[in-house]
This record gives sequence, structure tokens and C-alpha cells, in this order.
Amino acid sequence: MNEPRYGLIEAGGTKFVLGVADANGTILDRTRIPTLMPDETIGAMLEWFGARGAYSAIGLATFGPVELDPASPQWGHILKTAKPGWTGADLAGPLQRRFACPVIVDTDVNGAALAETTWGAGKGEQVVLYFTIGTGVGGGAVINGRTLRGKGHPEMGHFRLPRHPDDLNYAGKCPFHGDCVEGLTAGPAIFDRWGKTLSDLPPDHPAHDIISWYIAQLVVSMQAIFEPGKLILGGGVMATPGLIDRVREKAVKLGGGYFRSDASTMISAPGLGDNAGLMGAFALAQSAAPE
Amino acid sequence: MNEPRYGLIEAGGTKFVLGVADANGTILDRTRIPTLMPDETIGAMLEWFGARGAYSAIGLATFGPVELDPASPQWGHILKTAKPGWTGADLAGPLQRRFACPVIVDTDVNGAALAETTWGAGKGEQVVLYFTIGTGVGGGAVINGRTLRGKGHPEMGHFRLPRHPDDLNYAGKCPFHGDCVEGLTAGPAIFDRWGKTLSDLPPDHPAHDIISWYIAQLVVSMQAIFEPGKLILGGGVMATPGLIDRVREKAVKLGGGYFRSDASTMISAPGLGDNAGLMGAFALAQSAAPE
Repeated sequence: MNEPRYGLIEAGGTKFVLGVADANGTILDRTRIPTLMPDETIGAMLEWFGARGAYSAIGLATFGPVELDPASPQWGHILKTAKPGWTGADLAGPLQRRFACPVIVDTDVNGAALAETTWGAGKGEQVVLYFTIGTGVGGGAVINGRTLRGKGHPEMGHFRLPRHPDDLNYAGKCPFHGDCVEGLTAGPAIFDRWGKTLSDLPPDHPAHDIISWYIAQLVVSMQAIFEPGKLILGGGVMATPGLIDRVREKAVKLGGGYFRSDASTMISAPGLGDNAGLMGAFALAQSAAPE
Repeated sequence: MNEPRYGLIEAGGTKFVLGVADANGTILDRTRIPTLMPDETIGAMLEWFGARGAYSAIGLATFGPVELDPASPQWGHILKTAKPGWTGADLAGPLQRRFACPVIVDTDVNGAALAETTWGAGKGEQVVLYFTIGTGVGGGAVINGRTLRGKGHPEMGHFRLPRHPDDLNYAGKCPFHGDCVEGLTAGPAIFDRWGKTLSDLPPDHPAHDIISWYIAQLVVSMQAIFEPGKLILGGGVMATPGLIDRVREKAVKLGGGYFRSDASTMISAPGLGDNAGLMGAFALAQSAAPE
């Protein structure tokens, strides 16, 4: 092996995206495989990477919950999940054994936050947050170049917001917390209340006002707690036309002129588009490489 | 100057605590001066330190809002504040000019968080949060050994929580945000609703349930966002007998068994007591010293 080559994995609940990159992050090869049961999916992943040589490091940006503590025997395993068959699945171990190289594991949202900080909308910023609002809500953070990890990875979609006055009767869709951020703003919570996706509801439907208000409250909370340089909003719900502008407008108003960060310029769509996942895995893999 | 000596300042809204420490953090001398107008207070501070020699570095843990960006011409100045006379006051510049040594400026709560991480209740933890709940609410964080600073210092007391069902009619006391954390749980908000301090209300008064519920919501938000190793709760309101146990009990319940961090052991009273402020300034000063 002459030039360093990196294995990249974006592990999601419905598909795994796999890639091989050179030291510049150029994707030399890529594929996607469906997320079936762990044995099949992990087997297919090992086979694909095995047919493509050796690696200096492998970056794994994965759905969760995943154990990130390198001191834990469960490191790189999926923890208790509602996804059938996946509780306890070991993603990192088979890669490490087969390719005898460092495997860097982080959450998909931390990977995306790191990629956006390195190459995308958060370039050059000290504090960058990345939220995905889609079938669930997840958040990742990069602080001074490192992803935020505490006792486990954060679950930034699972705290509670104040309630919108026109939405007081909805109990929320999160099985753990009811009306946490995810329980109020994720796709299933929108469908549960209004029977359609936000994109399919007419622009004057009150759902737009309610959902953008909740996301703006999330933004203002993050301003108070982090004063981020950029707060990036991605995911399927955020793809609703006009939503990000509604969120900007409401966040400015709700902040009351109090924060140093300016919500109207701080809030950004993802800068890396479809490549964010694999670039996140590349940023992780690269962090293992010798300087 | 043979041994390194450090100047320590805990700058508060009612008093400045000044100290001189050796390299071990032993306090060789200390005093307190009242917070009058900036000229008088800063003059008295310069005089006290000037009479005690030279310093390797000075640590300044201050009330805010304070500019922390070293690239700003306002670095080390108090920003727009309701405190008469103090808007624009330059705390760090006169020290730097007079003593020709590094001056490390941070917020009082970041200083306390750093001191607690280094010597106190958060020792050895990767992520430590420190909240003071008193006449106001402020929060600081230490992540991988460094205090959290974004575009400005965070204002962790100024985001909104869900409302307690028995407290829906109170508008909140924060002039900027109404019912943010500070607007609902700080001393003035308690006095505003019930005409007494929390300590002076009988233990079966509903205020104990309401205030501990809000603080528990704050704790659960911090678990979701940071998964901290320790979350330290200090300040005058937190000195209410029994309050911290009520918060622990409610936070465990509200978390729904979802988080890795265990609220019952993660929540802690400050470990450094009255010395936290000066030790915070010492931790800051020491961070400037050559390794």
C-alpha cells in the first residue's frame, strides 16, 4: 500500500453507504447496500471492502444508539434499539479484525457536523451544531475541532420545549418523553397530527407556523447554551420549501435581541448535500491518520 | 521574581474577591472590595495587587456579559448591562498594562466549572456543567479540559422550558425572554410569585414542587445535549434545604430511563464551597503558565 486509502461507512437505518477515498477525500469507489439483518449487512460490507484492498483507517458514522466509549467492551456496538435484530450488533469489531487498521466510530450527526466544519457550511467556526429533523431528530456538535461526546453520545432531540399555544392538546410521539423535540417536530409527529407530510400541507396551513416555531425554540436554546458559529439544519422535514426561512424569522424574534450569534445568518442548510454522510466518515477516518 | 505567583480575581456584581496564590494554589493573601463604580473598583483592585509585587499571570473570573474574544477591541470589557455605570468598563486592560503579564478572562461560571473539574466535584470528568441558580441563572461548561465559549459566552439561563401545569399563568421575570429558565427559577421570580424566598416557604408549599420541577427539566435538557459526567448546581436558591434531592428525584423520573448519565449521581452540590470563585480564577491563571 503506497498512498493512504480510507474506508468510509455511513450506516443508516434503511441503507449503508460505503466508500473508498484517497488522502484528499476523493471518492474512488462507492456503493449502497440495504440495511437488512446485522449478519447479512455486515457480511456484505466486509465483502465489499475486502474486494477493494487495504485501508489506513476506516471511518464509521452510524445510526444509534451506539457505544462510543473505547474503554467499553460494547464499543462500536449498537445499543438497545427498537430496530429488530440490531440490539447488540457489533459494527466496529469485524472491521477491525478483518482489516487490522484503526476504526473511528461516531454518530452520523457528529460525523456530519465534523464534515460541515471541515469543508462545508461551518468551515472555520469554533462551535458548529448539526441537527437532522426527519423521521427522528438528532443533533451533533463540533467544539474546537472535536465532536462532542459525554457519558454516551448526546441525544439532542430528546429534551422538552415550551408548547405552541395552538398545539397544546397533542401528547407527542416520542415513546420515552412524549412531547420532546422529536416527539413534536419529527415526520411521524407531523403525520400523526395532520395526516400528511409538511411539504404536502398547503403553505397557509397552521402546521407550518407550529413546526417552524418549535424548531426556532430549539435554535434559541442552542444559542443560549452554545452561542454556535453555525447551526446547520438538515433532514427530510427541513427540506420543506420555505421552512428554513420561517425558522430564521421566528428565531430572531424569540431571541429578543439577547444573543451574540445572529439567528438569521447562523442558521444554515447543509453545505455538503448528499455527500455529507460519506464526508463525515472520511473526516473521522482522517482523524486517525498520522499528522 | 523566583517562584511563580498568580493574581486571582472573582469579579461579582456586589463584591470583588482578590487573591494572590503560589504555584500550588495556596492562597497567600486575599481581600474583598465592594463593587462600586468601575473607576473606584478597578482603582482599588490595581492598588491592592500593586502593593503585593509581580505576577506570572492573572486570572479574572467575572460577572457578565463580558467580551471573551481576544481578537475584539472590547476583549475583557463588560458589555451592555443593566448595572449602572458598568457598560463598557474595561476590566482586563488596566491589569495587563500595569502588571505586564497574561490576563486570562472568562465568565464566573466557566471559572467555577473549571475549578470544579480540576479539584472539585467534577474531577476527572470529560464534560462538566456548572449552574448557579440565585439572583440570576448562569451556566458554564468544561469540555475536554477547556471552557465552552462560542461567538460570545453562552447564556445558559436564557432558554425556555416547558411550563409546570400549576404555574401556567406566571409570565416570568426575565426582561428579555419572560419565562426562560432565569425568568422562572431565579430568586426574583420566586419572590415575585410567592412573596418569600424558597427557603422561607414551608416545605409543603407547592413552590418547592414547581421550582424543583423546572430545575429538573433543565437537568434533563443538559443530559440530552451533553450527557455530562457531572452537573453541579450552586447558588442561593440551590441552598434551599431539600431542593437538590427534589431535583434529583424529578430528573430521574422525567428522563424516562433514556439517558446514559444517571441523574441521581450526576447532580452534585459544588465541591469547593466558598473557594470556588478564587479557585476558578486560579485555574484560569494557571492555564496561561508555561507547562
